[in-house]
Amino acid sequence: MSNQKRFNVAVVGATGAVGEQIIRLLAEREFPVNELKLLSSARSAGTKIQFKDREVTIEEATPESFKGIDIALFSAGGDVSRKLVPHAIEDGAVCIDNTSAFRMDPETPLVVPEVNIDKISEHKGVIANPNCSTIQMVAALKPLYDRYGISRIIVSTYQAVSGAGAKAIQEMLRQSKEVLDGRDASPDILPVSSLPVKHQIAFNAIPQIDKFTENGFTYEEMKMINETKKIMDDESLEVTATCVRIPVVYGHSESVYVELKQDFDLEEAKSLIAEAPGIELVDNPDEQQYPLATDATGKLETFVGRVRRDLSNPRALNMWIVSDNLLKGAAWNAVQIAEYIAIEQK
Amino acid sequence: MSNQKRFNVAVVGATGAVGEQIIRLLAEREFPVNELKLLSSARSAGTKIQFKDREVTIEEATPESFKGIDIALFSAGGDVSRKLVPHAIEDGAVCIDNTSAFRMDPETPLVVPEVNIDKISEHKGVIANPNCSTIQMVAALKPLYDRYGISRIIVSTYQAVSGAGAKAIQEMLRQSKEVLDGRDASPDILPVSSLPVKHQIAFNAIPQIDKFTENGFTYEEMKMINETKKIMDDESLEVTATCVRIPVVYGHSESVYVELKQDFDLEEAKSLIAEAPGIELVDNPDEQQYPLATDATGKLETFVGRVRRDLSNPRALNMWIVSDNLLKGAAWNAVQIAEYIAIEQK
Repeated sequence: MSNQKRFNVAVVGATGAVGEQIIRLLAEREFPVNELKLLSSARSAGTKIQFKDREVTIEEATPESFKGIDIALFSAGGDVSRKLVPHAIEDGAVCIDNTSAFRMDPETPLVVPEVNIDKISEHKGVIANPNCSTIQMVAALKPLYDRYGISRIIVSTYQAVSGAGAKAIQEMLRQSKEVLDGRDASPDILPVSSLPVKHQIAFNAIPQIDKFTENGFTYEEMKMINETKKIMDDESLEVTATCVRIPVVYGHSESVYVELKQDFDLEEAKSLIAEAPGIELVDNPDEQQYPLATDATGKLETFVGRVRRDLSNPRALNMWIVSDNLLKGAAWNAVQIAEYIAIEQK
Repeated sequence: MSNQKRFNVAVVGATGAVGEQIIRLLAEREFPVNELKLLSSARSAGTKIQFKDREVTIEEATPESFKGIDIALFSAGGDVSRKLVPHAIEDGAVCIDNTSAFRMDPETPLVVPEVNIDKISEHKGVIANPNCSTIQMVAALKPLYDRYGISRIIVSTYQAVSGAGAKAIQEMLRQSKEVLDGRDASPDILPVSSLPVKHQIAFNAIPQIDKFTENGFTYEEMKMINETKKIMDDESLEVTATCVRIPVVYGHSESVYVELKQDFDLEEAKSLIAEAPGIELVDNPDEQQYPLATDATGKLETFVGRVRRDLSNPRALNMWIVSDNLLKGAAWNAVQIAEYIAIEQK
């Protein structure tokens, strides 16, 4: 490692749920960090964070924060990215943006390394990290897409509250305690903190993640639909999504129906999934083994199980896909991209 | 009411989660009860239960329990039904069975009153109550089936722990407390009490309800598939189901994709749902209104929302269907059938 090129890295949104995981992964993965700049809103500036053997003081993120930075990882919300990414690019940084700000921009590669790492070479200063629920789905479906082609995906999600941030976790745990104590749950954050109506998440299932669009789908659902087409680079791909928040802390689960373009052998399909990079097949009904959110927590892989041929369409299969939404769904996918950039620039 | 014919009613499984609701509904709905016989296993016999102004002592259910009984409601498990229903029929009772024992028997009507109440006249002593997750789905889809025809249904469920009985509720609440207290959750009952492997349900999503069949689907999923075809009386109907247990106490939620046989007008489809018997449309995205398990708890209706045209198939729509699994999904559907029998025999 010592002869390796080392990078000046900035993490924007360093105190958020995803930012914390990015910092942890940079350390754990021994990313070749030279200078580490931790940036946040003015409110959190001054906080000290341990990174390996050094202590880093968090600074306020401003347009001037990116002088000398090689790689900037953004996860402080779309508005912050829209404002600061252009400055970081101007100062020569490659930005990896975990918000939705640039995802559908035709100039910006939208990258899941297991699916389309080749796209990073096309970047014009920013590479977008897809939405958490999209990442794990496309990673799991990629081997089937490559072998058989996919015509259609119908997905229903079971999404963890951590996807809505640390305050949503606190709210869910607080409400759970309230209900267990025989009190009414007091909703305050979910489903969407900026909208007026709040619903109880403890012991409930809320079929709304993000705001609604004109067509009756939510933005979260449209992200899954549009991002999947962009990442797979296939506008003909038909995708339907229903996104639901459930009382789970970490780990998004997905019930996915997939129509293939060819006949397939079920055992071959399972083998392809098992051998795909970043994917672990957990699929043994006889032993009651299938992916579970609690098992996926803290893991970098995407877990796939309940793989079975559809009974009415022999060219379709159903599966259950689970991954830690803060890791493969966010921080790990971003750090993975940073690792590829580091290898390219070595 | 006083001139009305009154019925000798037996409730088998009187101390179970569903049995309790049946007794409550018989009272609340002012069912014309003459004698009320409450039956259970030997273990619970002797317990006294208040029914309106009388106190009823629970007796052990035996083959001899049904002398003089007009209507017997069974919800004590498939084995009890298989053993005792024939005796009840022999003694002249009409049996309404809430277990899976007779559902797929070609001689036995499988009835959701909103869908196929006409079938009760064909009974040969027993009318089967469908599986909870099936009932709410077919009730909600019936108006669309009648108007447009349905070719295909793909459903993913979000099922409450009460569907697995009172012990599963206790387990989920206990585990929630364990996790909130920073301890490990101790799984004991779920996903299937009679199988060796147990999984944590608190803050998790378990993609297994009932045992697995040979084809990789669970029995719960096969129930949804087969019962839906039988109730709709349409073997050509294509149904795919993925059944998932989530940490909710009461109320099953379902994400349902439906392909219609004809073009449809979305507003007309919503109106048909809104006007259908037993269905309440809760569908106002602008006001963040959609069905929620917590709102459905204790209600007799099936709630439908998030109704939207599919983006890739203009003849398909997606929706979110919620109902109290112990009520419309079990006790209320059974008592509803009993009410129709009472009207017929009046």
